[in-house]
Amino acid sequence: MFSETIELRGHIIDSLILPKVLDEILKGGGNFKIAQVKIGQQRADQSFARIEVSAESSDALDDLILRLRQHGAEVAEKGDAQLAAAPADGIFPNDFYVTTNRQTFVRIAGKELEVRAPMLDSAIMIDRSKERASTVRFADVRKEMEIVVGHQGVRVVPAQRATSGTDVFQLLNTNISAERPKGVLIREIARELEEARKSSGKILIVAGASVVHTGAAEYLVEMINGGYVDLIISGNALAVYDIENALFGTALGLNLERDGLSESGHENHLRAINVVRAAGGIARAVEAGTLTRGIMHACVKQKVDLLLTGSIRDDGPLPEVVTDSMEAQRLIREKIEDVRLALLMGTMFHSIAVANLLPGNVKTLAVDINPAVVAKLTDQQTFRALGLVTDIEPFMRELTECLKTLRKDAKISR
Amino acid sequence: MFSETIELRGHIIDSLILPKVLDEILKGGGNFKIAQVKIGQQRADQSFARIEVSAESSDALDDLILRLRQHGAEVAEKGDAQLAAAPADGIFPNDFYVTTNRQTFVRIAGKELEVRAPMLDSAIMIDRSKERASTVRFADVRKEMEIVVGHQGVRVVPAQRATSGTDVFQLLNTNISAERPKGVLIREIARELEEARKSSGKILIVAGASVVHTGAAEYLVEMINGGYVDLIISGNALAVYDIENALFGTALGLNLERDGLSESGHENHLRAINVVRAAGGIARAVEAGTLTRGIMHACVKQKVDLLLTGSIRDDGPLPEVVTDSMEAQRLIREKIEDVRLALLMGTMFHSIAVANLLPGNVKTLAVDINPAVVAKLTDQQTFRALGLVTDIEPFMRELTECLKTLRKDAKISR
Amino acid sequence: MFSETIELRGHIIDSLILPKVLDEILKGGGNFKIAQVKIGQQRADQSFARIEVSAESSDALDDLILRLRQHGAEVAEKGDAQLAAAPADGIFPNDFYVTTNRQTFVRIAGKELEVRAPMLDSAIMIDRSKERASTVRFADVRKEMEIVVGHQGVRVVPAQRATSGTDVFQLLNTNISAERPKGVLIREIARELEEARKSSGKILIVAGASVVHTGAAEYLVEMINGGYVDLIISGNALAVYDIENALFGTALGLNLERDGLSESGHENHLRAINVVRAAGGIARAVEAGTLTRGIMHACVKQKVDLLLTGSIRDDGPLPEVVTDSMEAQRLIREKIEDVRLALLMGTMFHSIAVANLLPGNVKTLAVDINPAVVAKLTDQQTFRALGLVTDIEPFMRELTECLKTLRKDAKISR
Amino acid sequence: MFSETIELRGHIIDSLILPKVLDEILKGGGNFKIAQVKIGQQRADQSFARIEVSAESSDALDDLILRLRQHGAEVAEKGDAQLAAAPADGIFPNDFYVTTNRQTFVRIAGKELEVRAPMLDSAIMIDRSKERASTVRFADVRKEMEIVVGHQGVRVVPAQRATSGTDVFQLLNTNISAERPKGVLIREIARELEEARKSSGKILIVAGASVVHTGAAEYLVEMINGGYVDLIISGNALAVYDIENALFGTALGLNLERDGLSESGHENHLRAINVVRAAGGIARAVEAGTLTRGIMHACVKQKVDLLLTGSIRDDGPLPEVVTDSMEAQRLIREKIEDVRLALLMGTMFHSIAVANLLPGNVKTLAVDINPAVVAKLTDQQTFRALGLVTDIEPFMRELTECLKTLRKDAKISR
Repeated sequence: MFSETIELRGHIIDSLILPKVLDEILKGGGNFKIAQVKIGQQRADQSFARIEVSAESSDALDDLILRLRQHGAEVAEKGDAQLAAAPADGIFPNDFYVTTNRQTFVRIAGKELEVRAPMLDSAIMIDRSKERASTVRFADVRKEMEIVVGHQGVRVVPAQRATSGTDVFQLLNTNISAERPKGVLIREIARELEEARKSSGKILIVAGASVVHTGAAEYLVEMINGGYVDLIISGNALAVYDIENALFGTALGLNLERDGLSESGHENHLRAINVVRAAGGIARAVEAGTLTRGIMHACVKQKVDLLLTGSIRDDGPLPEVVTDSMEAQRLIREKIEDVRLALLMGTMFHSIAVANLLPGNVKTLAVDINPAVVAKLTDQQTFRALGLVTDIEPFMRELTECLKTLRKDAKISR
Repeated sequence: MFSETIELRGHIIDSLILPKVLDEILKGGGNFKIAQVKIGQQRADQSFARIEVSAESSDALDDLILRLRQHGAEVAEKGDAQLAAAPADGIFPNDFYVTTNRQTFVRIAGKELEVRAPMLDSAIMIDRSKERASTVRFADVRKEMEIVVGHQGVRVVPAQRATSGTDVFQLLNTNISAERPKGVLIREIARELEEARKSSGKILIVAGASVVHTGAAEYLVEMINGGYVDLIISGNALAVYDIENALFGTALGLNLERDGLSESGHENHLRAINVVRAAGGIARAVEAGTLTRGIMHACVKQKVDLLLTGSIRDDGPLPEVVTDSMEAQRLIREKIEDVRLALLMGTMFHSIAVANLLPGNVKTLAVDINPAVVAKLTDQQTFRALGLVTDIEPFMRELTECLKTLRKDAKISR
Repeated sequence: MFSETIELRGHIIDSLILPKVLDEILKGGGNFKIAQVKIGQQRADQSFARIEVSAESSDALDDLILRLRQHGAEVAEKGDAQLAAAPADGIFPNDFYVTTNRQTFVRIAGKELEVRAPMLDSAIMIDRSKERASTVRFADVRKEMEIVVGHQGVRVVPAQRATSGTDVFQLLNTNISAERPKGVLIREIARELEEARKSSGKILIVAGASVVHTGAAEYLVEMINGGYVDLIISGNALAVYDIENALFGTALGLNLERDGLSESGHENHLRAINVVRAAGGIARAVEAGTLTRGIMHACVKQKVDLLLTGSIRDDGPLPEVVTDSMEAQRLIREKIEDVRLALLMGTMFHSIAVANLLPGNVKTLAVDINPAVVAKLTDQQTFRALGLVTDIEPFMRELTECLKTLRKDAKISR
Repeated sequence: MFSETIELRGHIIDSLILPKVLDEILKGGGNFKIAQVKIGQQRADQSFARIEVSAESSDALDDLILRLRQHGAEVAEKGDAQLAAAPADGIFPNDFYVTTNRQTFVRIAGKELEVRAPMLDSAIMIDRSKERASTVRFADVRKEMEIVVGHQGVRVVPAQRATSGTDVFQLLNTNISAERPKGVLIREIARELEEARKSSGKILIVAGASVVHTGAAEYLVEMINGGYVDLIISGNALAVYDIENALFGTALGLNLERDGLSESGHENHLRAINVVRAAGGIARAVEAGTLTRGIMHACVKQKVDLLLTGSIRDDGPLPEVVTDSMEAQRLIREKIEDVRLALLMGTMFHSIAVANLLPGNVKTLAVDINPAVVAKLTDQQTFRALGLVTDIEPFMRELTECLKTLRKDAKISR
């Protein structure tokens, strides 16, 4: 039998960490002996546990320890992280450590460094001269970079329950089904938006074309004009249908006000693309007075940072679209750095892409009428994500109403 | 080869009836020869076609003619309908004619009788003494009743497109997906409700417990108090959760206002049942002052006709619940007779049961957040049903707002 | 501050019971002080915790203790359960204890009695003369019966993780999504069926009409003939479509072999009902040689216990159908008493109704192509339920193949 | 009133074209007068109609004629198509004609040219020197290219019902729901695959990663080895999870055979990417003997054309992935030119992207367990698409069994 001793610290009982660790050991075919447990007597106290983990082979033990580290376990006999040089550009050394999106520390020369920009599925690069550790992805690794290998010396801070009781995002991975009243919740989200607006952190909107199709564009424009949006990440389609609507009063060739029900031609979206391409882009079309309303117009006017990523489904595309997926990913990582609050609405594709790159501590709200999309977005243990199954248009309508009320109340109380 | 000549009359071109008939013939392995076609030159004119249908066997021909009759085809050589006596209580004669829910005529003694209470999947009973034809279901057939057999002498009036252009229900079987703006449509529905309220026809609400769970109960109460509801058909669950909410301020053991997110015990719904059983029923609980708010309270106060049908999933049930399914079906048939407008909300089970018993000319709106439920309800060619995929609570909120605006405008214009 | 001391015993760490209890206390607005913790040093050892729970009001404390009991917490100072007489037939005393479906004990005269037939949402009736405690539902309570009130003296045994590692049902509430390989799992289920067949426990099938529509009826017939089915609970529809298929070779008026795609008339199911009604029921139709194949035929021939419950959606119904929902519920409770393994296939309605009445220790497998149905069925913490999102027909085909292989292997090894 | 005379030819009655045209006129607010109708007397005869269409404004009439052309209507007074020069690279002239994916003819100098590579949402470029018309997309238009503007002189051949009765794809846009038997249909699809294999047309597979996750990879490998696959279009994920499975025996970090249920780490897919990047690509990894099994291995060995398109969700990506979306679109258009049969499995994203570029006459089968995905793919009137709602793995298993049986039978009959 091979064994190693691990230690757990923090709110390991009421954050379910201790039992999850014991659970993982049993599930992984290992066994444990609890050497010491000190449980905090009061709610605010931290707890401590020292556990001897054993397994049948050295490999199985390694594998087990790897998983336990995801829950914040530290190997008792501490050592420095091991490093290896990248063999070539774009290639990691064998056995590179794969990151989560939680706060992570690496022990180098006996000293723990916090890893910058925690992100899923990356490696950790060490710059000894600057005493700096940061995540690095395949595209950015360069030959001879020093990369962490194995699990020795790496410590992940597990997600722990917030102690304050009023934060709607404190409940990890909660999913509000369609069969629930949403009024209270939407008020809370409005409050979070208002707080974020006043703070230095950015507000990110990831939106699908359904925001336009459902008739919710006007509410997003209101949010932009109210200062509730710092960054929009989306695709060609949102921009095209928004501009089609602005230019021709239609979306999907359909006049939202007049036609109501009937579905007709779809040439308008291609004509809209042609107009913007001829103008030299969205911003120029606004400057030239060609584009005078809609989401894109509001983004240009309010200087909202806009990132449109390309896909093989695009018509056109519009000149602003970043067609290379690796370049687009790089830009997403760059732009989301100070995001404090993220709203993912009406798009599974962009939402998952962005969520995979967000640090674990960003408050994230996913809204979609399809429960499967919401479930997928909140179904990762690594996230402070709240899911809401509802129709986009009434959600946005109520949210903007709540924001207005909040501001009115603020004025009165002053 | 066996052949027979059929005739089609009406808006057979622009209602797609002629091509559907030809299509059915080909699909059924038959062949056709168009003997005569007279197409209306102007939009308002009726058209006429006489077609010789042939098939390989007499059986195949019969089968084919049966299907063509669903589209309004008449066999050219007309004869009386054939009748046979029911062999026993609850049993039809072999080869009994199976009804659709469209307007139907039966030729008896050279004279066409309109069949009363057209309804899916019934037989037609003839009372010669009273010159009366009416639908009859298994449960109600009695020995020696005269029942129509075969298809001879039966004429079904096919669904034809309305000629006025402003009726949202004129589009047969339309399904408004989640990705559509719904504002215009909800205003139209409000207008239909207002018209129905002023007319002699009844307004029927079929509602699931999700009306309470989503927090929409207050809007249904508003509709009841405004005179927009004549009849509610539902199950034990809607009543129980509504009463739980009225008595304890919770639904599913959850305080809608206070708790927001957390889910807790579920004893309250059982206690609510116990209270109502002890009082001797919903109406008595209202009279005794025990039940003072909610949907059930409003129904009692406003004398809305309420039918609660039982199911094997029921707890309790409440004393008002009709636990026998055949008795409940009989009551549904009886109560829906003068319904003009039906709203089916948040329940597949009750909606399908009621929709199967509704005559084909009732304007029907199905609302659910699950597109599969809406599709199932509008996917029958026999219905003037409009489907709407959206969240119940914001739908009801906007609908009641529209109703208020309509009434305000009406006052002003007076 | 009001406080009470509770005790937890068993695998309270690795079954997550301790942290869940602490969690509930915090969520419920209470506070705790851990008076004593003794954690088992080895995997097989039991643990013990004594915790002082406090809350702001006596009511809040009561409410909290109620929830903690669901997790197996016992109030340290033990007392007898309190009893009150039912005030009338069909009515419980106020504050009656509401049951879960887990093993439960009640302390009467200083002695613990195990509650018979544990079932969700019932009360507990005490028969002092026979020293017997059993669940009782609204319909069965009679005036003056002694009913447990409050939570004093009631102990619920929490669900604990099985210690053997090979049981696919040991994982509570697992849900296998469509995006998972199912081969291994189906082999395990076949093995469970084979074991259950040889044991004295019953195998229950709850099946929807989709079993016939998807063409899976032949596999269910194979299972019946192989002795893998003791009890079928379903509705009128399954029987009707199965008999339609047996009599006319069609289902929904569609010849499964010949037509492939096209959809045609639907009279056949009504004719099938008429034939069986004329014969005097399913069993008589089999005896008379009218019904010679299909699921219903196999049930009669193999003496499988069959319960068909009625609903307001039924055509007919067939003579065997129990149309009263309370009578049907009573029969379900009676018949499921010795069920060991339950397969719920292709029906949300009947599956939920039956699942609500099953004891918590029955191994339950829910299969449906709709992930929402599977989620609903496995989403109750009270169940040993395994969910499988897949197409019914290929699932049944592979399951019967596995059963054949198992039997062949068994013969060879003998 | 403005009016124009149109003509319709072909099976305009039984293909529903005439009534659809009349319907469009009424829906578009126009009116019609039928000048002449000649209906084919026998099934094989063609019909003819000449209709005077009128509308209130010249614009409305133009708009109407545009829609009628989608149904094959020709303006009676024929003229040449009008051309205009593209004003700049990547920009079409105003009022450019937007294509459908059906067979289209353009009249130039009194002579009709067939448009090459019919495709949705493109423009038509005319090369007068070569008397050639072909579709052109935004990315490929160059300054001064002659582009068709307006609708004059453009004729679209409408989709007409096949006259032979055995082709499962003859039914336009059919959607086989989960509640249907699929055996017969899968046999037909196998027959189509066998025919396509022997013909010169290519077989295209568009597959999502769920093919690997569900355990269906082995069946796709069988199809590749049997010669049933000429071209695969997919993304980075399919390749990565297939290679992870080949290298480590896991997918999503899960051993398909051994683990059955439990979900564990997800590092393996990143290690798989690293291995292939280090080898210099998939093909080199196969040559070097590193990659010895799976779908990617079979593609390299059997020289199947493989196109992996990039997206912002990609990890890595693998060296073969085309990261620029416009370049990827160009390659898709190039490679699908001779496709005869297309199977779209388990991916909405790639399926829609490819379906948008496929000519309207390619036989297309969409398979997914999610009915919404299948509906979206078959819900375009422009397609010979058959949809199948079922689980991928059993579908592929049965399909490969059918293919084996077909080949065995073929051998015997020789």
